[in-house]
Amino acid sequence: MRYEYITLTTDYGLNDEFAGVCHGVIAQIAPGARVIDITHGIEPFDVRGGGLTLVRAIQYMPAGVHVAIVDPGVGTDRRAIAVEAGPSVMVGPDNGILSPAVAMLGGATRCVELTNEDYQLPRAGGQTFAGRDLFVPAAAQIALGTPLEEFGDEVDPHTLVPMLVPLCSVDAKSVAGEILWIDRFGNAQLNISPGELEMLGASVGEQVEVEIEGAAIGAAFSNTYADHEDGVILLIVDSYGMLSLSVNRGRASDILGLRSATKVRLKTG
Amino acid sequence: MRYEYITLTTDYGLNDEFAGVCHGVIAQIAPGARVIDITHGIEPFDVRGGGLTLVRAIQYMPAGVHVAIVDPGVGTDRRAIAVEAGPSVMVGPDNGILSPAVAMLGGATRCVELTNEDYQLPRAGGQTFAGRDLFVPAAAQIALGTPLEEFGDEVDPHTLVPMLVPLCSVDAKSVAGEILWIDRFGNAQLNISPGELEMLGASVGEQVEVEIEGAAIGAAFSNTYADHEDGVILLIVDSYGMLSLSVNRGRASDILGLRSATKVRLKTG
Amino acid sequence: MRYEYITLTTDYGLNDEFAGVCHGVIAQIAPGARVIDITHGIEPFDVRGGGLTLVRAIQYMPAGVHVAIVDPGVGTDRRAIAVEAGPSVMVGPDNGILSPAVAMLGGATRCVELTNEDYQLPRAGGQTFAGRDLFVPAAAQIALGTPLEEFGDEVDPHTLVPMLVPLCSVDAKSVAGEILWIDRFGNAQLNISPGELEMLGASVGEQVEVEIEGAAIGAAFSNTYADHEDGVILLIVDSYGMLSLSVNRGRASDILGLRSATKVRLKTG
Repeated sequence: MRYEYITLTTDYGLNDEFAGVCHGVIAQIAPGARVIDITHGIEPFDVRGGGLTLVRAIQYMPAGVHVAIVDPGVGTDRRAIAVEAGPSVMVGPDNGILSPAVAMLGGATRCVELTNEDYQLPRAGGQTFAGRDLFVPAAAQIALGTPLEEFGDEVDPHTLVPMLVPLCSVDAKSVAGEILWIDRFGNAQLNISPGELEMLGASVGEQVEVEIEGAAIGAAFSNTYADHEDGVILLIVDSYGMLSLSVNRGRASDILGLRSATKVRLKTG
Repeated sequence: MRYEYITLTTDYGLNDEFAGVCHGVIAQIAPGARVIDITHGIEPFDVRGGGLTLVRAIQYMPAGVHVAIVDPGVGTDRRAIAVEAGPSVMVGPDNGILSPAVAMLGGATRCVELTNEDYQLPRAGGQTFAGRDLFVPAAAQIALGTPLEEFGDEVDPHTLVPMLVPLCSVDAKSVAGEILWIDRFGNAQLNISPGELEMLGASVGEQVEVEIEGAAIGAAFSNTYADHEDGVILLIVDSYGMLSLSVNRGRASDILGLRSATKVRLKTG
Repeated sequence: MRYEYITLTTDYGLNDEFAGVCHGVIAQIAPGARVIDITHGIEPFDVRGGGLTLVRAIQYMPAGVHVAIVDPGVGTDRRAIAVEAGPSVMVGPDNGILSPAVAMLGGATRCVELTNEDYQLPRAGGQTFAGRDLFVPAAAQIALGTPLEEFGDEVDPHTLVPMLVPLCSVDAKSVAGEILWIDRFGNAQLNISPGELEMLGASVGEQVEVEIEGAAIGAAFSNTYADHEDGVILLIVDSYGMLSLSVNRGRASDILGLRSATKVRLKTG
């Protein structure tokens, strides 16, 4: 099994040489591979942000080897793993970052621990850059067709570290959830779907009460920015089918003081 | 007609997965296409900045499908268009962002509205990510050779939204213009050419008076940074043949308090 | 001699069109070339930072044409050069930025000044964007197989501007050095190797005294982040085999007030 595409999702940023070095390592091991940078802009150490970004992106990626590296446990005994799921293989640390994407692709069909040093780069120094020395070389070898069992012992997928994405909770009059992600435009994605709001009796076009850390504001439940004036606060159905707190041509995160993990409760009349 | 290259100019930034998803969508629809990221760093909603960036870049790009997305009207009834111009096709919202590049390429020879949903992705949620669901899929299909008329009704190019780039105005003793763009180095590009300054009698090497919001400073009209000490304020002929306010090894924008659209008047002796 | 890969290391950033234009120029001159962006995030005018980044990356890059552009002397009479070293050619301004990588590749075997205007782009304006007009076109031509002697007169490699990277100095009880680089995670790479610390009698696992601008703190000499609690200050063997001041899951640069060129002295018991 060979893979043409390798994707990268990391917290390496683009100001150091880290992401470029990953491209160089791939070019040397698997020169025919094509690389897609999903992003290198995950906040340092934000495993949850990395996992959520990967799962939002994965359905738009070609089958391939998907590397995700946010790795606060680098150099500890956290496992390095490759997980076959659907038509793809996910590669990264076993800290939960791969789990949402693995689930989205139908679950793990096979998993190995990446321990075989034959497929790692000889280390030039300490073990602080596992992307360069371990994950990306493994991904390039997998793209070339090296069978997973070559990399190390099989791992029971049930032992993989899960990512605990909080679920919203619904009662008769309200739904309580939290912010999963703030995007570049200041939109704040919630872990609440439009269906859950509709179960409370709300319809698109109506006003909904939004409680954010005690304070209450009104927001328009909406399918689109159209028909709303600039500055109006919206509960909009975002491009992933979840609800986002958004401000038409403004930054909801700044205006409402929202961050990842801020608690939000939605109420209807 | 097939196109090997697709270029992207957006305000998506690189910290979310948005730009990576555009690459993934292209890889799935037109795997043979090569993608050049002109930039994803346009300020959110800065349509003028996007259009000016694209027109500065376009002459250095291979013929291809050029996508530009700064789209504050996403989800409204603003048109989504593809415009054939010179050897290329420009794809984006009809809000003016494409207009300078279309003009630079000799004007529109054909234009269609992108309404055919067969060439759009099935929407996973709301219509807030038209790059992923509409513009990039259309660009990839155009690169594959799908004729423009397949995408929707023909549009009269004269009805396209223009981009109003302010012209400078010259009188006997001065020329009044404004800042079009501040670059990473703090250089401030003006909408004034060296020729217009020369028409006032100024020659390269001479001092020019620069009025910025009432205050006057001197600047050296120059072809090069050479022969000027660090910190000297220059009116330099920039790499696009326009005048820029620059400070040798310094940031003119910070030192002089310049931003996009700041008014500037140049006077000679 | 043809080269498949061209790498780019610049201070152009990614918010302007500069890096994208370099890709476009390469696509037009050498459409078969593959481009790796090592980084465009070098601080403006930071020649030393650019040279150190390139030398950290170069050993992980395929043979090719490596362009490095941090060019405060653009438009002056600083030379533009191409330097053959090992299996690669380095292209950039003769200001020292190429020198560490040339040395790492075994030294210059040939060097020319890039003066032949036949291999430069016709200038659209002033000479402020030598990457677009001179360095990248030359790199693309070299990738195509144009012999170096076509570009201009041979240059004696001994006349190339060196990069003066400060050496650490060791006495009986301490080693004095400085910070070379702060990375995205706030790790501060020193110009001191673990071997130099060991020559003072220190062993991995022991505490070392670190003097930073007069103030003294303790740090754990360590091979890995493992076995250290969050917030512990480490002198860690980094992925390049040098010592870095790091804080487990924290930012050493912020916590200790470190910047590039900050002086540091290490002492043992």
